[in-house]
Amino acid sequence: MRLYSYFRSSSAWRVRIALEYKGVAYERVYVHLRKGGGEQRSPDFLKISPLGQVPVLEITGERGLSCITQSMAILEYLEETHRTPPLLPSDPVERARVRELAEIVNSGIQPLQNLSLQNELSVRGIDGAPIARAYIEAGLSAIEALARPVAGRFLVGGSVTFADVLLIPQLAAARRLGVDVEGFSLLRRVEQECQALPSFRTASPDAQPDREPAA
Amino acid sequence: MRLYSYFRSSSAWRVRIALEYKGVAYERVYVHLRKGGGEQRSPDFLKISPLGQVPVLEITGERGLSCITQSMAILEYLEETHRTPPLLPSDPVERARVRELAEIVNSGIQPLQNLSLQNELSVRGIDGAPIARAYIEAGLSAIEALARPVAGRFLVGGSVTFADVLLIPQLAAARRLGVDVEGFSLLRRVEQECQALPSFRTASPDAQPDREPAA
Repeated sequence: MRLYSYFRSSSAWRVRIALEYKGVAYERVYVHLRKGGGEQRSPDFLKISPLGQVPVLEITGERGLSCITQSMAILEYLEETHRTPPLLPSDPVERARVRELAEIVNSGIQPLQNLSLQNELSVRGIDGAPIARAYIEAGLSAIEALARPVAGRFLVGGSVTFADVLLIPQLAAARRLGVDVEGFSLLRRVEQECQALPSFRTASPDAQPDREPAA
Repeated sequence: MRLYSYFRSSSAWRVRIALEYKGVAYERVYVHLRKGGGEQRSPDFLKISPLGQVPVLEITGERGLSCITQSMAILEYLEETHRTPPLLPSDPVERARVRELAEIVNSGIQPLQNLSLQNELSVRGIDGAPIARAYIEAGLSAIEALARPVAGRFLVGGSVTFADVLLIPQLAAARRLGVDVEGFSLLRRVEQECQALPSFRTASPDAQPDREPAA
């Protein structure tokens, strides 16, 4: 299994956490998203990831080599093919709650804060950061409210789930964009629990061989 | 089972397709997203959907009543609890391909075209439509490229999957925003196959009791 990754990409970070947590051996290929206009725009990379995005997981299935993009699709694939330790609970309603929290980050926050939209707005003379911060604050508030009745040591119950896997990179992005996360007491407590786990530490941007000093 | 829906919401439309396709009986509650500033902002609705979004699926599980938001979480829940007819293939790599295509719409296009961002940009004096069109064109091109090697009668193989469920509302939104979809020949062919199915017709905005004439 090969993961196309960039240390700063929050979506690649999610997949790294899942791979480390499940103890799946994988090879890393580094795609620099900024150098020379972005290596993700090279014709070779666009063949495997038409939107020019990381992460990409290269897998060998029954019909040979396949490349899968989109972090949620990759996480679900890993959960289906490497069931232990699980990243989803067994009860269908709890599974739905986990995916709901994960999707609030995946589709409700991340697309509205990421580099692509920020660049689109910047060329039109708009600072996208306040818009990003508004979506981050609304999304994190919703997660805190929805998780409160179901949280244990982690966001949904006593084990790590997709919801935690998505939360950790999102909290880092929130701080980088200047969001005050102090008030999200449940999210910060869960973050501390996650950061105490070796798999989360190994997957973090700071621990990546392609890391660079903060810009 | 109760679905909180608005006829024009593309995310609610996805869930209506899945419910109809699987033949699940459900009751509809209508939430008007524009009237009086939007009924989704009422305190009662925000209790069940903290982001003020439809769809919401109200379900009865082992621990009583639960409300699930986020259309992808709802689709996965329906797939797990009503397996026949399936909306995911059985092979893990094909399942990953389906979810990849669905997520290109869900997180790669829809958040960047929807009313919320368009309003945010409008108050800053920016017309968000060209930005939305650029993301739609890039996303549909990626879906067409990724689906071409795996498509059958539908986007992935010979049966309806999540990928088709997400595609149909997205193509309608593309046309509404003035995107020329003529060149997407595979997507248009699949759209015709879907529109021939009673479940897709029953789920369409035009068939909803809360429909209104085009603005």
